[in-house]
Amino acid sequence: MFPTTDADGRPLLATLKDVARLAGVSVKTVSNVVNGYEFVKPDNRRRVEEALATTGYRPNIGARNLRRGRTGSLALVLPELSIPYFGEMAGLVLEAAGEHEWNVLIEQTLGTRDRERSTLAALGPHMIDAAIVSPEALHARDFDQLDPGIPVVMLGEHSVDVPIDHVGIDNVLAATVATSHLVELGRRRIAAIGAHPYRGTATQRLDGYRAALTAAGLPLRHEYIVQALNYHRRDGADAMAHLLSLPEPPDAVFCFNDLLAIGALRAAAEHGVSVPRDVAVVGFDNNEESAYSMPSLTTIAPDKAAIAHSAVDLIRRRININGGQNLAPEDVQTPFSLEIRESTR
Amino acid sequence: MFPTTDADGRPLLATLKDVARLAGVSVKTVSNVVNGYEFVKPDNRRRVEEALATTGYRPNIGARNLRRGRTGSLALVLPELSIPYFGEMAGLVLEAAGEHEWNVLIEQTLGTRDRERSTLAALGPHMIDAAIVSPEALHARDFDQLDPGIPVVMLGEHSVDVPIDHVGIDNVLAATVATSHLVELGRRRIAAIGAHPYRGTATQRLDGYRAALTAAGLPLRHEYIVQALNYHRRDGADAMAHLLSLPEPPDAVFCFNDLLAIGALRAAAEHGVSVPRDVAVVGFDNNEESAYSMPSLTTIAPDKAAIAHSAVDLIRRRININGGQNLAPEDVQTPFSLEIRESTR
Repeated sequence: MFPTTDADGRPLLATLKDVARLAGVSVKTVSNVVNGYEFVKPDNRRRVEEALATTGYRPNIGARNLRRGRTGSLALVLPELSIPYFGEMAGLVLEAAGEHEWNVLIEQTLGTRDRERSTLAALGPHMIDAAIVSPEALHARDFDQLDPGIPVVMLGEHSVDVPIDHVGIDNVLAATVATSHLVELGRRRIAAIGAHPYRGTATQRLDGYRAALTAAGLPLRHEYIVQALNYHRRDGADAMAHLLSLPEPPDAVFCFNDLLAIGALRAAAEHGVSVPRDVAVVGFDNNEESAYSMPSLTTIAPDKAAIAHSAVDLIRRRININGGQNLAPEDVQTPFSLEIRESTR
Repeated sequence: MFPTTDADGRPLLATLKDVARLAGVSVKTVSNVVNGYEFVKPDNRRRVEEALATTGYRPNIGARNLRRGRTGSLALVLPELSIPYFGEMAGLVLEAAGEHEWNVLIEQTLGTRDRERSTLAALGPHMIDAAIVSPEALHARDFDQLDPGIPVVMLGEHSVDVPIDHVGIDNVLAATVATSHLVELGRRRIAAIGAHPYRGTATQRLDGYRAALTAAGLPLRHEYIVQALNYHRRDGADAMAHLLSLPEPPDAVFCFNDLLAIGALRAAAEHGVSVPRDVAVVGFDNNEESAYSMPSLTTIAPDKAAIAHSAVDLIRRRININGGQNLAPEDVQTPFSLEIRESTR
């Protein structure tokens, strides 16, 4: 047995050489296994893996990062991991960052401007190489004073017009597509759930909704635009209950995210209103649960993997090109589609 | 305007003194605001916050951690953030860790033994102070050779009998409670979805299911125990479709997590089977979506916030007491409840 601790019980640091000796292979073979190369004979791979486990060998990532002049970590700043869209997005960012050997520190802001500002203000090169930020409540002037000294990429809606790399879908267009789909079904009393006093996404999706109605020659009815201060299921249920209590309830609803839509489906069922017969419903995000709701939910499906990969690519571009100080900010538009399911069929 | 960069455009590091001078308050007041004390006059707080923004002051967290002899980061190792249970749990761990000024690095293992082993093997004191690990596929012997040199807390089922701090609910008891609830409804043909060849959770939940049936004098029917190699919605739908195709289909199903149950509800609807009239369904986890499914889902609700806080407390205990080397491993059992909803009403 290879000794893993010294006489005083302190862990001994095993080297590649120790592993190679124990496995009876060359140092190069061990290095190939450690670095994840595919073409290693299965028998050698097994022996190396056993030797790695026995010796407790760990690649010295700290030293490797130091040589490269980086911390080895990215920050991902988002509202809440318990919101499925952000849980799914975080998983994809972890995968994309991992392909370039970055660890990911996650910070939750709960979507409040105060916490978004204080989190951004705390970003800096002492802990992380770059940050991916998904803001909800920030104003343009919050960015004026932002100088973290590291690359920052913004995800989601380009709500604030600031000179920062950005990745997201065309929210106005996506909202127009969602609303036009309801128009094409022959619906004429189309409501929107998710208006918000200052969220950039909300403003853009409302613009798209309005554009679609105007293009179809349908009136904009104030009572059909319902605010949601949060975008949780409960808010969607409350908003739908309100709409169904109107003297002339809508025959279709575009919800600004899937959670609002799931809540709306629930409220419709509780009011004995059939979806899609009485009210058709469209969501936004294509959360995994939306394929399983009853009825399953028609929704705007952003290409989330493309968003995650584009964000990591923008960071690499800035880090690789001399700090990226002189690069103009990029605005990457990722694709989306409309997933048509039972709620509008 | 306070200069934030030198003549060459390099950022100047502002000190507490700079902030205090600009705000016209004492250094102590600035320090109080920065450290989050409540009792600061609103006017002073506003001036300090403006000065903080103007100067771009950042508390030197790196130096503070260095003085304390810590990295300031924890690792959270879990299967997938896109699985709602882990998304919710990760959010709660971030909150609990944040209360003690820890950042959290998240690693996804996708629940495979290979990736769980390699992630555990890479843990070490160079990046993190401690790790919280939620394993799915590890065997006891994978832990034999684990010596990360930092505290490790295991979440979820105590599937493997290893001398490591552990937090979780009593899985066997919870599964018994869930199954007994179905027995009390008068159901006699109770199936289980989620058996698995080596997952610890699956074994424990199956034990609880069996215990409840035996206690009720009901036969254990092999055809009513359905494997699920993954615990996703699709697997639950497939398993339910299989059960409904049996010559004598079950009149109740206990699913080993909520995602399986959501899939099972969907399959029941597609087969024209009414829940709970024809088949009652119970899940496990109490994901947020389960209160909104149609019908809403009866489920075992672990106290997730208690799990997150207990895990962070166990880490603090080991770190504070001289490295915690001589402390016996603790096994903290957190509470759970049965949330009774429409799927069994």
